[in-house]
Amino acid sequence: MGLYDKFSRLAAERSSLQSLDPSPFGTRIDVVYSSTRGRIGGTDVILAGTNNYLGLTFDEDAIEAARHALTVEGTGTTGSRMANGSYGSHSALESELATFLNRPSVMVFSTGYVANLGIIGTLAGPREVVLLDADCHASIYDACTLGGAEIIRFHHNDAKDLERRMLRLGDRAKDALIIVEGIYSMLGDVAPLKEIVDVKRRLGGFLLVDEAHSFGVMGANGRGLAEEQDVEDDVDIILGTFSKSLAAIGGFAAGRSSEMEVLRYASRPYIFTASPSPSVVASVRSALKTIAARPQLREKLWSNAQRLYDGLAALGYSMGPRVSPVVPVMVGSKEQGVKFWRALIDQGVYVNLVLPPATPSGVTLVRCSVSAAHTSVQIDQIIEAFAALRPSLKLTA
Amino acid sequence: MGLYDKFSRLAAERSSLQSLDPSPFGTRIDVVYSSTRGRIGGTDVILAGTNNYLGLTFDEDAIEAARHALTVEGTGTTGSRMANGSYGSHSALESELATFLNRPSVMVFSTGYVANLGIIGTLAGPREVVLLDADCHASIYDACTLGGAEIIRFHHNDAKDLERRMLRLGDRAKDALIIVEGIYSMLGDVAPLKEIVDVKRRLGGFLLVDEAHSFGVMGANGRGLAEEQDVEDDVDIILGTFSKSLAAIGGFAAGRSSEMEVLRYASRPYIFTASPSPSVVASVRSALKTIAARPQLREKLWSNAQRLYDGLAALGYSMGPRVSPVVPVMVGSKEQGVKFWRALIDQGVYVNLVLPPATPSGVTLVRCSVSAAHTSVQIDQIIEAFAALRPSLKLTA
Repeated sequence: MGLYDKFSRLAAERSSLQSLDPSPFGTRIDVVYSSTRGRIGGTDVILAGTNNYLGLTFDEDAIEAARHALTVEGTGTTGSRMANGSYGSHSALESELATFLNRPSVMVFSTGYVANLGIIGTLAGPREVVLLDADCHASIYDACTLGGAEIIRFHHNDAKDLERRMLRLGDRAKDALIIVEGIYSMLGDVAPLKEIVDVKRRLGGFLLVDEAHSFGVMGANGRGLAEEQDVEDDVDIILGTFSKSLAAIGGFAAGRSSEMEVLRYASRPYIFTASPSPSVVASVRSALKTIAARPQLREKLWSNAQRLYDGLAALGYSMGPRVSPVVPVMVGSKEQGVKFWRALIDQGVYVNLVLPPATPSGVTLVRCSVSAAHTSVQIDQIIEAFAALRPSLKLTA
Repeated sequence: MGLYDKFSRLAAERSSLQSLDPSPFGTRIDVVYSSTRGRIGGTDVILAGTNNYLGLTFDEDAIEAARHALTVEGTGTTGSRMANGSYGSHSALESELATFLNRPSVMVFSTGYVANLGIIGTLAGPREVVLLDADCHASIYDACTLGGAEIIRFHHNDAKDLERRMLRLGDRAKDALIIVEGIYSMLGDVAPLKEIVDVKRRLGGFLLVDEAHSFGVMGANGRGLAEEQDVEDDVDIILGTFSKSLAAIGGFAAGRSSEMEVLRYASRPYIFTASPSPSVVASVRSALKTIAARPQLREKLWSNAQRLYDGLAALGYSMGPRVSPVVPVMVGSKEQGVKFWRALIDQGVYVNLVLPPATPSGVTLVRCSVSAAHTSVQIDQIIEAFAALRPSLKLTA
């Protein structure tokens, strides 16, 4: 069939990897024992490649809340938020997030991808300019494509480059959208928000920060990077997800102004997507309470991150630029990466393999993700697995 | 803020409607008593404006399956299908859907909107032509925008017009995507699939049918309109959702050929969206079994649809073109429609209000949706509510 022809190169490449069992793409986790342990292809592994930062997927309160919601509200809403899919619990979650973030307006979406499409793709129409950190997530690029805005990429984490490009825009700069992330998912580095805000204060612009990987993870109260860098008042919209620290699925946008509410009537991805299931809403509400009540989870997460980073760095691995719950390890060529990933499974450790072009600068990396639920013993077991494989990996530099 | 200015007209129009309490957009269902009863703004209502066609949102087997999944697999996967978000249960659902539909390949997505973006937006790239029924759902239009294909709309349900436009395409016709729906969500009418397939057999093309509203609802086995019209072998990809007859949230694509599998590696909405939560997967698997085991649910749905259609037609209302689980009633001007919708709530009946431009031909309608879970008494109560309001509605012709 002609329509599939354009994928033939991709198909050939991927099918060679699929002959590996387990395969690094679409790896099937056959049994999930806990938030940090599972079985893959007959091998019991430590799950060190999830976004389960606070380890709340098996939190008893969240599970009980979800079970209760199933009984009283059923398995699904069968409608979008604008039709019959707004229950009391959806509104409650929005107002609880608004209170947590100290913002007047929060919109809840069914996935984080849809949240980005629904907010960015609607705000950034064909007349708008978007200034995008080059390493932004695919969902942000897709949102810009959907909205039809002009996209200008600036160098990753380079506020000076942002400034240069804004200056060139002249009058258009003041209504340009600037989009950055809290923690970047590939290298675990964070946006220089203070510097970006400084540019915005001088040149204008509308700032969106996607805190997908930093919500619940950074800031004294877990509100994210903007809280940690004390610039919350300068962020116009905070975007977030429920599928990482909040341990479910969904997304949200939190506006600095209630003007954002109009997007409920304009955002096609919001209007035309079924609303989150009651059980998901209930577990997210519970997890949000837990994030507020148990800052020690964040402390444990960061102490685990430090322990893993230090342990792998001591083995001589080439790492990401800073300690972070996302711990990338460079592993040479694609072929080396695939072998390395597979050997880690045999060592009892599951991580993500990320190949170019999905990675910055064309590197191949395995990405560990740390959870507050990892014990120190598990972190040490992950380090031992990497130690066992270190001799097999010839790395330049 | 300048960025919101472009929505100011919309904001003014919608805020006038929002002063109604309850409001017709984003109506909050404060309490959900059952699949057919809820409380809105202090009034107990029959829910006659959901997509809960088989009434399975409170199915005991589905709820129990979801509750069990929460306990054994947790509240969420915290990863996309291509990373750490494919559990054994996701694969099982895909193979059960494949068996049910008798197709070699099924991909599961986290929402129906994302399924359409992920399949259509990937297959229909900038070099492709899409021939689209003019009344197709917003998610299909958005998918075409995301993919960048050339869009050619043909007149709604007009296979002759499709043929004319394909003939104009010359050689390009043979790889053009033809996209239609099973049941159309506004008027409840169905695609003339036999005629469309006849055009395809003569001129070529790749046929996608979105069975969102017809899966579980039409066909001797509930496989949808393609089954009912006996043209399944001619449909290249069937698209479907979990948020209607399957009573949860999510979507799927079922390929006639396993070539579709390559889209797992090419489809950005698939790759970059968190995977469905285990509880959702479990309730969908249960509902799918129920659809297969209890054809009497479909019979009850259609007998309810007939009863409601006949009852409202007898009152002299202007209706959709055929008996269908989607029962639209034309209610005059926008202003009349808003009042009518609000008065129905007071009569104890919740339906959807749909205003132009979301409707075909600029009509204002209230859309009833029938469920197999409605009792005949409830159907009669809905008819009585419409009867009570009939005198207040002056309709031309």
